[in-house]
Amino acid sequence: MAHIYSYRRTIRFHETDGAGVVYFANVLTLCHEAYEAALGATGIDLRRFFGGGSLAVPVVHGEVDFRRPLHCGDEVAIALAPQPIDGSTFEIRYTLSNGDQKTVATALTRHVCIDSASRQRHALDDQLQQWIRAAKPPSVAD
Amino acid sequence: MAHIYSYRRTIRFHETDGAGVVYFANVLTLCHEAYEAALGATGIDLRRFFGGGSLAVPVVHGEVDFRRPLHCGDEVAIALAPQPIDGSTFEIRYTLSNGDQKTVATALTRHVCIDSASRQRHALDDQLQQWIRAAKPPSVAD
Amino acid sequence: MAHIYSYRRTIRFHETDGAGVVYFANVLTLCHEAYEAALGATGIDLRRFFGGGSLAVPVVHGEVDFRRPLHCGDEVAIALAPQPIDGSTFEIRYTLSNGDQKTVATALTRHVCIDSASRQRHALDDQLQQWIRAAKPPSVAD
Amino acid sequence: MAHIYSYRRTIRFHETDGAGVVYFANVLTLCHEAYEAALGATGIDLRRFFGGGSLAVPVVHGEVDFRRPLHCGDEVAIALAPQPIDGSTFEIRYTLSNGDQKTVATALTRHVCIDSASRQRHALDDQLQQWIRAAKPPSVAD
Repeated sequence: MAHIYSYRRTIRFHETDGAGVVYFANVLTLCHEAYEAALGATGIDLRRFFGGGSLAVPVVHGEVDFRRPLHCGDEVAIALAPQPIDGSTFEIRYTLSNGDQKTVATALTRHVCIDSASRQRHALDDQLQQWIRAAKPPSVAD
Repeated sequence: MAHIYSYRRTIRFHETDGAGVVYFANVLTLCHEAYEAALGATGIDLRRFFGGGSLAVPVVHGEVDFRRPLHCGDEVAIALAPQPIDGSTFEIRYTLSNGDQKTVATALTRHVCIDSASRQRHALDDQLQQWIRAAKPPSVAD
Repeated sequence: MAHIYSYRRTIRFHETDGAGVVYFANVLTLCHEAYEAALGATGIDLRRFFGGGSLAVPVVHGEVDFRRPLHCGDEVAIALAPQPIDGSTFEIRYTLSNGDQKTVATALTRHVCIDSASRQRHALDDQLQQWIRAAKPPSVAD
Repeated sequence: MAHIYSYRRTIRFHETDGAGVVYFANVLTLCHEAYEAALGATGIDLRRFFGGGSLAVPVVHGEVDFRRPLHCGDEVAIALAPQPIDGSTFEIRYTLSNGDQKTVATALTRHVCIDSASRQRHALDDQLQQWIRAAKPPSVAD
């Protein structure tokens, strides 16, 4: 898998729950933050991209597997790798590691570009296609 | 204070933090839920009201005082009382009680009606003014 | 699938994002709320169950598929069906419907009972096993 | 006011709401993140500090004033200044600025050290007192 971006964050108190570890659904939120950071790093305007323009790229599927708990104050690194599926669809795979370089969770999100008004599929725009392809060096098999 | 609405809710796991009680800022979220429920009960369309139309009524000030902790599974009742301030401004006072009828927190939010595009003050619309006045029966002192 | 519980909720403003619909990861939070409500309805003490006792039942896998967006003020019904996997593991399937009885999302969570200190697998306790089996009436095929 | 720490963050999509700006209560969460980062920078173990030990330092009061909206992708800087109140109490003032160095919000939290079991007041420990005093250079008036 060709990772194109790694996002680092300290786990914050509000992300933990009464069991003293990060609430499970917040791990998908951490992944989406990494996706936002990776888009932002290529110069995509996040306010416009996520702000309800004529095209939208909602998450249509998400999944996450947990191996180790994350606690308040932990440093987490999220490596992400996008992959094209078809002209309007891509997936991103995420690997979350803690300060000991141990995998704490893996996750996947699938995104489909749609026309915001009709909610019909629409081709991914060039900027996003370029961002997805950046993860696939021409001569290297995944 | 003339309460016009009481909202009841069970505290959920995701609202608690690693100290085992509701995360402090989530108490203001509970208050806003009560405000939404109270507006909805008068027939205001919540999707339209909060959905970024030409007028918006953002919170410009919030405050909250904590007396007792709230735990996962606790039943909380939130009584709310709106109060007009001027033609474009109102406040809401909240009292949160637990299953033992003990006050767990009090809070206040101040809301100002603005034109969404210019972000200049705008008069509150009739429906909202009526909702605010409903808390003030004509012949009864607060 | 034998649903044993249906949980109803109004979508609140804080659950929506800048695209005007419920933020994707919050749908898993809605599902966990339904799970808490279903446990509570059978008399399980939620504060103790989720409060970091000697046994814990963390989510080890979650997945969610989105079909339709949810907006602020929408009424959502979440039907849930638990299923035993092995002596320490169970899954829950969720179907979320909107006010028009249309499916807006489906989801699944897998839960494993562990010893909180060692984080080793532990048999599900009787109360939880009973709750899971309640979904499987003896003479009716799923 | 003597600021002792400045925390920088990019606003993430999940923090925005259906009006396209950061949900009001999330601004207090941003402030608490800045507090955590400032404690962490002095070597305080965040997992232990927030993890429900024998002493706790819950927020007993919070308030926030909003001047300008924050959008997805905005860079925010949060300057914070702690101030001792009495032997068990301190306050923190926060100023949030956007990328144009304009103040977007100000906030205040009050914290009281308690014995976690009895929930009675307890003297602040030395490490925390030192952190609070670090904001008050000996010869400079606040």
